[in-house]
Amino acid sequence: MAAKRIPAADPAALGAREAAWRIAEGAMSSAELVAACLARIDAEEERVQAWVFLDRDKAMAEAEERDRRRKLGMPLGPLHGVPVGIKDIIDVKGMPTGNGSPIDAGRMPLEDAALIRRLHAAGAIILGKTVTTEFAYFHPGKTRNPHDPSRTPGGSSSGSAAAVACRMVPLAFGSQTNGSVIRPASFCGTVGFKPSFGAIPRTGMLTASQSLDHVGLFARNLEDMALAEALMGPDGRDTGAGASPGPLTATALSEPPVAPALAFIRTPAWSHAEEGTVAAFAELVAALGDRLDDVELPEPFARAYGWHRAIMTAEMARNLGHYVDRAPEQCSDKIRDLVAEGRGVSAPDYLGARDMAPVLRSSLEALFDRFDAIVTPAAPGEAPEGLESTGDPVFCTPWTYLGLPALSLPLLAGPSGLPLGVQLVGAAGQDARLLRTARWLVRLLNEEVPA
Amino acid sequence: MAAKRIPAADPAALGAREAAWRIAEGAMSSAELVAACLARIDAEEERVQAWVFLDRDKAMAEAEERDRRRKLGMPLGPLHGVPVGIKDIIDVKGMPTGNGSPIDAGRMPLEDAALIRRLHAAGAIILGKTVTTEFAYFHPGKTRNPHDPSRTPGGSSSGSAAAVACRMVPLAFGSQTNGSVIRPASFCGTVGFKPSFGAIPRTGMLTASQSLDHVGLFARNLEDMALAEALMGPDGRDTGAGASPGPLTATALSEPPVAPALAFIRTPAWSHAEEGTVAAFAELVAALGDRLDDVELPEPFARAYGWHRAIMTAEMARNLGHYVDRAPEQCSDKIRDLVAEGRGVSAPDYLGARDMAPVLRSSLEALFDRFDAIVTPAAPGEAPEGLESTGDPVFCTPWTYLGLPALSLPLLAGPSGLPLGVQLVGAAGQDARLLRTARWLVRLLNEEVPA
Repeated sequence: MAAKRIPAADPAALGAREAAWRIAEGAMSSAELVAACLARIDAEEERVQAWVFLDRDKAMAEAEERDRRRKLGMPLGPLHGVPVGIKDIIDVKGMPTGNGSPIDAGRMPLEDAALIRRLHAAGAIILGKTVTTEFAYFHPGKTRNPHDPSRTPGGSSSGSAAAVACRMVPLAFGSQTNGSVIRPASFCGTVGFKPSFGAIPRTGMLTASQSLDHVGLFARNLEDMALAEALMGPDGRDTGAGASPGPLTATALSEPPVAPALAFIRTPAWSHAEEGTVAAFAELVAALGDRLDDVELPEPFARAYGWHRAIMTAEMARNLGHYVDRAPEQCSDKIRDLVAEGRGVSAPDYLGARDMAPVLRSSLEALFDRFDAIVTPAAPGEAPEGLESTGDPVFCTPWTYLGLPALSLPLLAGPSGLPLGVQLVGAAGQDARLLRTARWLVRLLNEEVPA
Repeated sequence: MAAKRIPAADPAALGAREAAWRIAEGAMSSAELVAACLARIDAEEERVQAWVFLDRDKAMAEAEERDRRRKLGMPLGPLHGVPVGIKDIIDVKGMPTGNGSPIDAGRMPLEDAALIRRLHAAGAIILGKTVTTEFAYFHPGKTRNPHDPSRTPGGSSSGSAAAVACRMVPLAFGSQTNGSVIRPASFCGTVGFKPSFGAIPRTGMLTASQSLDHVGLFARNLEDMALAEALMGPDGRDTGAGASPGPLTATALSEPPVAPALAFIRTPAWSHAEEGTVAAFAELVAALGDRLDDVELPEPFARAYGWHRAIMTAEMARNLGHYVDRAPEQCSDKIRDLVAEGRGVSAPDYLGARDMAPVLRSSLEALFDRFDAIVTPAAPGEAPEGLESTGDPVFCTPWTYLGLPALSLPLLAGPSGLPLGVQLVGAAGQDARLLRTARWLVRLLNEEVPA
């Protein structure tokens, strides 16, 4: 993973876990880390445009306060002194939260989102708000791909992916309703993690689609993803929030008791995979040999895309329709078309689409008895050229619909040398096992696969 | 209450609690009770038509088995040896469950519903299946009102209400999606109880509308309703099932610590109340004096009827549409029209209607801080003449929409001398307090109000 290739002399190059560990040990101060991250932002922001709001002074003051706490010997959370970026659809008290729309520009939340409260409790410092597409849908924000500014960083969590990729921050948060974490992680070459549906409560985050919205994470190494355990579990307000998948760190960092088995699944969307992706996955399949089986999904999976679309458009029409009604001229065509489409979905069709998710999920139980994870592309290819589109989420859609935990791992490269994510998907609630399997896979490939 | 007026010499006249107590004490056998109930059925069934299926031999055999258990000193449940009637939309293994439709006639369930398993565990004997309207909606079954066979017993739990009213069984079960427990209880002069939404799991019951379906009870005295506590609590399968409102008996049978305060609410449906109902409630209001305040609902309650209708029609279209598609000629016009209407509801409107229920529920918190229960009619008037209609559920609609616990108490009479229920509605989850308040009210009126 990237963290290993960057000299640790630059605090901004550290992963979140390692940074927190160094701060706790007194080997580095939170102020040094925040200053290093701000220096990276100074160097790169003009080119990358990852942020909509930054409070440098407040972040430095909080870092100093964290350093004082440490010196006083007070108990430190797992993210003590570590700065993070927050997608601008998640409410942070004292920072404007604009939801990527001019309609909400300058909106000041009265309360922190549940995620923010838990990040504060873990000791993290909210550095600022990262660019989102309009209402976390498809109309792009200003962010550019750090690997090639003429290309999209993906969306909708564009700024969080880009900021982590260019070391402005070791950890950032986004959301996924279709492919908004896994796809930008793939395009920007970070690790992306969408925990099981409901694992991290969404209270205080813009509701796009209550049945599909997930909180997700971006980091530069896989081990950092186990930090999500501090953010999981019901908050008593998000009615979609479920049981926590349980502690992640111990399992995620342990060796699998037996060598994991992987299922390579092309999915019904395979025709969307670009030539370079097909070739890169052919190499991956060859490298993994008998550790990977070619598996086909049961037939009804072809319908998951339509079911996902019925739910997403109907719920987004319900939740965002008032923006379109109130200020149509300040909404993109994309969001206006979405609301119109969602208003045309009948309630029985919507309910049918929702009813099928648990049925499909059960149909995968046999697969997850045999395999530790599904291997599939994170996106059709490298980040597309241009900034008008944030790319195609089709390789994420079924796993979001089913609420399964998913990772994007920056293990492959496309024909232009840009990152190409390998998506790993686990059984519902088995987030820890997914992280353990992913770590095993990364080590295996670092040993066996030519870079 | 009725039980007090019938000589206890007839076991069929006993309430469920008292019958269970006598059986447990050895003062009466379960076989005697079942035989007495079967004798009542022999005497009345031709006139009342409450049952679609009865297994007399099996019921007698089970009664004898219950009597043997008692003699062996084995532990006895709270309904040990008591026969009950089950609405024919609730699955009982070994009995056909027809859902009130020729399409499902003779359908044999493979499993007991959650309610039935809990009834078995409590020692009850399933005497048979009672008449329901078609799919628990408006197209009537064969049952007649025991007080006047030219009139409807109400619906959709027609047979359960009528069977309890004419002492065929001390306790029977129905369901309510709009007014299907409270209305027939009012028309037949029984006590009807619809516990808080989700209190009794619905697994194994026909799903008409998953957001609105409630399990409900019919008995001839209020104290029997506390027996519902044995049936409450999540079963791990009904995803709509919530926490149990907690033990009922101790609170329900205790004296209120201070005299309860009641809120008389006419509701936006008051224009539906018949002249005799208006007069009877005027007398009740006068009799209760300052124990009752005249309260008006917040304005948005007028819209609860439309929101209830959007949810009910949309969900019933989703759940029952396949019957109409498969065998339209075996469906009534009422159910065909319902499915067509529900298919015309848009998903965003449906979601909006669902979102408003918790908002309205919160707007009642201040009311339930001040008042122990709402007093309102159970139905517009006495049971209407004729068997073509099961009457109007309009006085039940908002409380079903909100999932609040509700009772119908046979305290009043209409101009023809037929029963007129007083509906008591409690705060969500406060079923025990509702039962306690109702018991206090019944005692007060028996003392103070001329019969």
